[in-house]
Amino acid sequence: MLTFAEKIIEITEEKNTRVCLGIDPRPESHPLTAGERFDDDPAQMAKALIYYFQAIIEATHDLVACYKLQSAFFETLGIPGMIAMAQLIADIKSREIPVILDAKRGDIGSTAEAYAKAYLGDGVFSVDALTVNPYLGIDSIEPFVKQADKQNKGIFVLVKTSNPGSADFQDLKLASGEMLYEHVAESLDALCQTVVDSNGYSPIGVVVGATHPQELVKMRYALPRSIFLVPGYGAQGGGAGDVAAAFRKGSGAIVNSSRGLTYITDGDDFAEQSRLATQQMRDAINSSISFSA
Amino acid sequence: MLTFAEKIIEITEEKNTRVCLGIDPRPESHPLTAGERFDDDPAQMAKALIYYFQAIIEATHDLVACYKLQSAFFETLGIPGMIAMAQLIADIKSREIPVILDAKRGDIGSTAEAYAKAYLGDGVFSVDALTVNPYLGIDSIEPFVKQADKQNKGIFVLVKTSNPGSADFQDLKLASGEMLYEHVAESLDALCQTVVDSNGYSPIGVVVGATHPQELVKMRYALPRSIFLVPGYGAQGGGAGDVAAAFRKGSGAIVNSSRGLTYITDGDDFAEQSRLATQQMRDAINSSISFSA
Repeated sequence: MLTFAEKIIEITEEKNTRVCLGIDPRPESHPLTAGERFDDDPAQMAKALIYYFQAIIEATHDLVACYKLQSAFFETLGIPGMIAMAQLIADIKSREIPVILDAKRGDIGSTAEAYAKAYLGDGVFSVDALTVNPYLGIDSIEPFVKQADKQNKGIFVLVKTSNPGSADFQDLKLASGEMLYEHVAESLDALCQTVVDSNGYSPIGVVVGATHPQELVKMRYALPRSIFLVPGYGAQGGGAGDVAAAFRKGSGAIVNSSRGLTYITDGDDFAEQSRLATQQMRDAINSSISFSA
Repeated sequence: MLTFAEKIIEITEEKNTRVCLGIDPRPESHPLTAGERFDDDPAQMAKALIYYFQAIIEATHDLVACYKLQSAFFETLGIPGMIAMAQLIADIKSREIPVILDAKRGDIGSTAEAYAKAYLGDGVFSVDALTVNPYLGIDSIEPFVKQADKQNKGIFVLVKTSNPGSADFQDLKLASGEMLYEHVAESLDALCQTVVDSNGYSPIGVVVGATHPQELVKMRYALPRSIFLVPGYGAQGGGAGDVAAAFRKGSGAIVNSSRGLTYITDGDDFAEQSRLATQQMRDAINSSISFSA
């Protein structure tokens, strides 16, 4: 059975795509034609978003390396939102495409184990990889690594996020001379070395924003055993040239776009427009990366 | 309408208790008598945990300042778990006791807004206060503060957590001479100063573990406008003397215990045993704090 990292690398090569399509439901932007525009009823909203994203998945599944669901937008719709999330996870799994849940969980001891079981186990919210917040320390990350390793799944730990405020704490200069995010990366690589698959990758991936191209170069060097999940492409300002540094020989990273690939039009052709945008993003990234270095 | 901080202070004074009872469902520990022991069916587990914790809430509601639900243990049970969480939140609200959701959320921009709406809005998961992780920076905290301020609710930002691994990043020494958690506290107090209620408290509370009594002293001084949520009492090693520093004139903090107050016995008298343990904890804390300083 392939590890999560092996799956990503295999799909990247077979389909020649490094695009992670982000599913971030935004009720106010749903076109009227897509299962009717959301009203204030969470059940109607959940129904509309399932319809909308099923159409987008149908139109883009051959162009993407994976999908990423943003948990917050489902949680905000209460129980119907959680059911919609489980439904879309099941739809993506049935196509044998990896699905990442962007939930940025993080806790200690048995609580971290419960999160790991919820999202990297066998339940309805189980996915191939989960985003994890490192603030609580390495002992808060270990339960996720253990569960991921056991189930051939992965995690993506936040190292350097794409928002301007990421500078507030992540860029703080330490007494050692490093910045905080560099130290976090170092600690994670030490953990990576304890669990490595046949390709030299560990289940511990990292998040580094496309809005920080120089940091991407440094981090790719510091974290040779990690798959990179790169957010911030497109709407947040990162371009194809900016993300090139996340790859090694054309592999080892996926680039996420949510707003750039969905909600492009109010018209009937919303899924077709998502397909065109996904094709363009795939080709732009493929043109920018070096397959030899 | 009272702010969240005002509610906590009023309840502390009226009921003379500073106990936050933590609701962390642990399937393997449920007594047979409490709605039958959990089996592997999440729906049965959810039913049993509602029964178990409703009995504990009934037995302890006059002894606590608030309840705290640990979201992970509900998420791990899938849809039935989320329904159980909504049910227990509704039960606690109907008794007019504040309820905190310990979900340690954190994200950026519209995603943070979606989490804030999910947990500090009007939906089925809405509570009085939510725990928040600061790693992504101040712009990731602001949407929660805005929503909390609008709805007279609160947040508790992780500053210094109770686990041993909290030292890994939170205790890193910065080039400025401070530790990371001290810098986080400083940044939070600057934000606190922008939103203060009539008692001088802001909606931005903080989490500082009972396992770090010296840090509690420093943090109480650094964060005069924050309600403190103090985990780590009891099972994790913090004692009544350790948490005394979180209070000012007997107020301004709540101390959580989960494992120390629940799952004490396998017998029929589990709720009664929780009541006795809660009384003891309430009295131990009240004896240890100074009401003048």
